[in-house]
Amino acid sequence: MASSSTKPAKGMRDVLPEDVRRREYVVGMVKEVYEAHGFEPLETAAVERIETLLGKYGEEGNQLIFRIMKRGASLQRALSEEATEDGLADLGLRYDLTVPLARVVAEYQHKLPKVFKRYQIQPVWRADRPAHGRFREFYQCDVDIVGTESVVAEAEVMGAVSMVLDRLGFTDARIRLNHRGVLFGLIEAAGVDAAKATDAIVAIDKLDKIGWEGVSGELAERGIAAAAIEALRPLLEVKAGTNAETLAGLERALAGVARGEQGLAELRTLLPLAEATAARDRVELDPFLARGLSYYTGPIFEVASPAMAGSLGGGGRYDGLVGMFLGRDIPAVGFSLGLERLLVVMTERDMFPQALAAPDVMVALMSARSAPHALALATDLRRAGVKVDVFPEEARLGKQFKHAEARGIALVAIQGSSEVEQGVVSLKDLRTGDQRSVPRDELVAAVKAALAL
Amino acid sequence: MASSSTKPAKGMRDVLPEDVRRREYVVGMVKEVYEAHGFEPLETAAVERIETLLGKYGEEGNQLIFRIMKRGASLQRALSEEATEDGLADLGLRYDLTVPLARVVAEYQHKLPKVFKRYQIQPVWRADRPAHGRFREFYQCDVDIVGTESVVAEAEVMGAVSMVLDRLGFTDARIRLNHRGVLFGLIEAAGVDAAKATDAIVAIDKLDKIGWEGVSGELAERGIAAAAIEALRPLLEVKAGTNAETLAGLERALAGVARGEQGLAELRTLLPLAEATAARDRVELDPFLARGLSYYTGPIFEVASPAMAGSLGGGGRYDGLVGMFLGRDIPAVGFSLGLERLLVVMTERDMFPQALAAPDVMVALMSARSAPHALALATDLRRAGVKVDVFPEEARLGKQFKHAEARGIALVAIQGSSEVEQGVVSLKDLRTGDQRSVPRDELVAAVKAALAL
Repeated sequence: MASSSTKPAKGMRDVLPEDVRRREYVVGMVKEVYEAHGFEPLETAAVERIETLLGKYGEEGNQLIFRIMKRGASLQRALSEEATEDGLADLGLRYDLTVPLARVVAEYQHKLPKVFKRYQIQPVWRADRPAHGRFREFYQCDVDIVGTESVVAEAEVMGAVSMVLDRLGFTDARIRLNHRGVLFGLIEAAGVDAAKATDAIVAIDKLDKIGWEGVSGELAERGIAAAAIEALRPLLEVKAGTNAETLAGLERALAGVARGEQGLAELRTLLPLAEATAARDRVELDPFLARGLSYYTGPIFEVASPAMAGSLGGGGRYDGLVGMFLGRDIPAVGFSLGLERLLVVMTERDMFPQALAAPDVMVALMSARSAPHALALATDLRRAGVKVDVFPEEARLGKQFKHAEARGIALVAIQGSSEVEQGVVSLKDLRTGDQRSVPRDELVAAVKAALAL
Repeated sequence: MASSSTKPAKGMRDVLPEDVRRREYVVGMVKEVYEAHGFEPLETAAVERIETLLGKYGEEGNQLIFRIMKRGASLQRALSEEATEDGLADLGLRYDLTVPLARVVAEYQHKLPKVFKRYQIQPVWRADRPAHGRFREFYQCDVDIVGTESVVAEAEVMGAVSMVLDRLGFTDARIRLNHRGVLFGLIEAAGVDAAKATDAIVAIDKLDKIGWEGVSGELAERGIAAAAIEALRPLLEVKAGTNAETLAGLERALAGVARGEQGLAELRTLLPLAEATAARDRVELDPFLARGLSYYTGPIFEVASPAMAGSLGGGGRYDGLVGMFLGRDIPAVGFSLGLERLLVVMTERDMFPQALAAPDVMVALMSARSAPHALALATDLRRAGVKVDVFPEEARLGKQFKHAEARGIALVAIQGSSEVEQGVVSLKDLRTGDQRSVPRDELVAAVKAALAL
């Protein structure tokens, strides 16, 4: 029995081969699609200076950063003074991919194109309480366009994420679309006090979970005036059957509310662009989608799948964030997919292609004398692009077949002393049980034919 | 100007798009070859419990581990007691890929095959003093076979690494091969006191740098008897022109030294196996190759390239290490390539293929009205596997061409209002300057033909 000390640390995971292959299948697809959309890859170090991280993620975020202790003399100095959490750490683990992007845009502004389309697929670490499907190390797949206010950028990231969903088989996933101006405009149109707008949105965000009864109660508790609550109720039904109908409803509801009308105009520009991409038929206007409350400044989106409560990803325009290290606004729009969430759904729904795994061929090992021959034919096959395992020890052929079957290997190539003398290889097809003799110099072709490569 | 706070942390790096593509080219090749050899991928978390790491890398290693501070109540407890380096940390960053492998083998022993062939390509972190080409975050590309004593395993890892070198274009890299039994056998044959064997090896390891004068001086300083030093000198010439000649010399030199003879016998078995793999013509017996002094127990190897002092990678058999968490020996052999070292040489020698980078096509943006058409044709091309950038803003066509040229894009597709009306697309080839009109529904075929896809 392994002692408990061989488990991974709390909230961390070991990813065994089958699951690595599944992750790589998804990551490979995401990369391919992001590249097809003209995004360029960026990687940053797992470790950031602690000052880069602190104060960027709110009070709760600060507490969830993994802090790395100072070392050597500077640690000794910190210990000799009154030792504090902040004084002892000089580094921290990457917490998201947006702050590193902002740092990179500031540091390399003269090397990067004016409009920088980048993707980044890397792990982040948060000292959250672990829960089912929630880990302390998880991967984000971010795609962002920095440096333009054009809504073509929104359409591009929506199209890219949609094509990922298409390729992975998420046929029923929708992209919910809203605009912060529309959301706040509706709140304003209902006569909610501007100072209470955020409170109102937090309450309304729970509509799916607690219904209108619950929401109206919470609105009252949060000090929203009764008249405003009354006025909000019909607005919640502005989302109609089609996007065109929702737009028409919004037009009426937002008449005269400047920021609402401006947001609506942007959505009217964006929708036909998004519909010209792979996002067509996925986009669903949702005027009360809130998507957190912090840094978004324009359109916001979220991937919703009937297979999962919560979202598979989300994003939006955030014109104030990327420029934080430069002290001026830089327009930006991004969309992030959560790798672990995609994997959970794909595993539950069995959405992975077969045969992500095994080698194609196993070369049996018959004797010490024939071992160099076995390795030589494995080498030939490998050079030809065939995935080949070599059984590492002399053993009964039955045992070797069993090993190959357990790994899902299709073909076993056998070249014992007698085959070596005759210049042939015995090729056994474990799928059919057939075994035949193949001239040694025709082996590569025979294997490729049998595997239909 | 970016403030200095936008630089990555000391010893850490941001990897901008061009360099990410170069890294991925190498990593992709390594993976492909390792997979072709029947190895399976493993990934472990960046964060390990501190107890898993401490005491595994020697005293110096302990100091180089990045320690992660406790959090919340347990941090407060640790701070209220006498705060110490060890008391304040509960986690640390992965320091190599071998200790995590050992932990995984112990934890999942009943799920893993008896002979486990795994590869792992992940970053490790060491708080080393940064220097030219030495970083605090760097990638190791490890391949190991756990669970067999057969030297077929040695041949397999040597063959895998050699095929990587072949594919990347390291035509002049050699694999130096030795055996710990041969090395210690030679020291014993010279009459060096067993207690001084390690001292002698440390000194001899410097032969290339300081010559025989220096080595013999250091041997004397380290207390090796004069007669043994005298006896060592001719042994240093046992490495001869061919491996067969070296073997013959070793046969004579090691006669009667049991562990030397046993090591030699293993090399005699291994050599023809290695020569049946892609390692053929790379393997060079080197009876004084030492390869560190710690945990190797059998054959050892190192990749040497004339392009670089130091090695590109190395490995060997280490039968005592993987079982450390189980309390029993598990035979294992591994080979590790250093990604950063490969990249340094490949960059200096310009060994990367052209065209790792740009999208194939840029779709120009002519007007707000034609923007949906532009996105629609980008979507069609992307679905067909073409890499496409869309210029995000309306701008003069000349400016858009410049952007495409700067990114190395070959083709620009233009569909302004008049082209929309005529149902055509203007396709400009920036490589030749030619521009022609293509029917909209023949665009994908025309682009693929122009790109020779």
